[in-house]
Amino acid sequence: MSADHPFDAAIKLSAVGEGVFDGATHAGYANMVGPFGGITASTLLHAAWLHPQRLGEPLALTVNFAGPVVEGPFRVTARALRTNRSTQHWHIELEQGGELAASASAVFGQRRDTWSATEIAPPLHGPGEQVPVKGLSPRVVWPQRYEMQFVKGGWPDFANPQDAPADSDSELWIRDSPPRPLDALALAAICDAFYPRIFRRRQRFTPAGTVTLSTYFHADAALLAAQGTRAVLGRARAQHFGGGYFDQTAEIWGDGGRLLAVSHQLVYFKD
Amino acid sequence: MSADHPFDAAIKLSAVGEGVFDGATHAGYANMVGPFGGITASTLLHAAWLHPQRLGEPLALTVNFAGPVVEGPFRVTARALRTNRSTQHWHIELEQGGELAASASAVFGQRRDTWSATEIAPPLHGPGEQVPVKGLSPRVVWPQRYEMQFVKGGWPDFANPQDAPADSDSELWIRDSPPRPLDALALAAICDAFYPRIFRRRQRFTPAGTVTLSTYFHADAALLAAQGTRAVLGRARAQHFGGGYFDQTAEIWGDGGRLLAVSHQLVYFKD
Repeated sequence: MSADHPFDAAIKLSAVGEGVFDGATHAGYANMVGPFGGITASTLLHAAWLHPQRLGEPLALTVNFAGPVVEGPFRVTARALRTNRSTQHWHIELEQGGELAASASAVFGQRRDTWSATEIAPPLHGPGEQVPVKGLSPRVVWPQRYEMQFVKGGWPDFANPQDAPADSDSELWIRDSPPRPLDALALAAICDAFYPRIFRRRQRFTPAGTVTLSTYFHADAALLAAQGTRAVLGRARAQHFGGGYFDQTAEIWGDGGRLLAVSHQLVYFKD
Repeated sequence: MSADHPFDAAIKLSAVGEGVFDGATHAGYANMVGPFGGITASTLLHAAWLHPQRLGEPLALTVNFAGPVVEGPFRVTARALRTNRSTQHWHIELEQGGELAASASAVFGQRRDTWSATEIAPPLHGPGEQVPVKGLSPRVVWPQRYEMQFVKGGWPDFANPQDAPADSDSELWIRDSPPRPLDALALAAICDAFYPRIFRRRQRFTPAGTVTLSTYFHADAALLAAQGTRAVLGRARAQHFGGGYFDQTAEIWGDGGRLLAVSHQLVYFKD
């Protein structure tokens, strides 16, 4: 953690009571409406992380985006619902003006040395290219907080759309900008750093917002620390669009083809 | 809903206050320790479903299994955290003896008629065969509550294991036994009806339990009702095993290759 890094400034929380923290939105992570969902996810995880009762490392995080987060201060409360031998379950809420804007569940625990295997294959991992973000509202600042080198499926140019592809796959090398050593907090945000898959599939701007996001952490703190500031390889794709919602799924790969995290989300869209 | 069906008996809740319900475990859905996780997931969803403030249909459900559910009565409380134009966010808790055993978040909402597309392909959908459940503890009753016809990856015979396969894929036709018209409550349980993928991958019994389970519902009530009592086609596979945990992901397909739901879970295992 570095107090000077915009990521750490954005997820900064000040304890004002047992499990009660004050924070504020950060202009550097602004999205179309409110902050980038990934920074909200990290902030909620951070509250459990900072809690004096917290045991172990993050295993899973689900964030529900219940209403818009507006620019300004917010309050986060984290409560350990139950602690077992192997896992600890948390409920976390983010409020503004007395109204809930986001809630989360987090599971922390101790990993043990066990048999391991990865069944999914890493992406192509060719060299990436930087694809400029064009045609999005100037309010959308958060992509500047990441270095993104796309192997496939870069930001669409809404003014000059390509033919719509048959799938919504993107693959990219990504890291914080400026570079920051990887940890579970940064990884939680990176898992949400794939632009809405409907932008790619339809090659046009569509109002869209994450409804719920679940991330499973497969890497422990030592493996994340070993990744350091080197870019990770991310892959995202949608599974189904319809009825005003779609789901998208993501994988984050580290050095040596190690799967660091998988993440799934349900997204609202308007067409 | 049929009051006589074991599924409906198992998820039955009696309102004892605003958003407070009493229920009890059902011997027909017993698992190794406590009830089948899918029936607990449906019971938690049912509490929000029954709440007089509930609007719309289930879009997403995340259940966190915080501790063992023991045989006997339990209390479920459901609270609407926030209701917006398009979605309603719920927090649900299941307690026994004053201690939390499971918590959940659910998102309900209205679907709208929009552009739609499915990017993942349905499984092989060949004919299935019934594979007997062998070598599991006689305490594991819940598989008898489903008709399962496996296309691929049936129950391992722990006494006579096959060579361990290179993946953990299973594909099967599944419906309630006796047959029951499909709805989101039954679908929520079916999403968890795939035996732990580590059983298939390693062809041996391994103590394992779901830590957290997230399901996204892609079908509305009309589409589920049209499926009636006909079996759905399910597919499940693991992505990564390691550190004492693995994740598995599932798809449920209806008639005509319609994707009804996708589901993801993180599972604890001991080796």
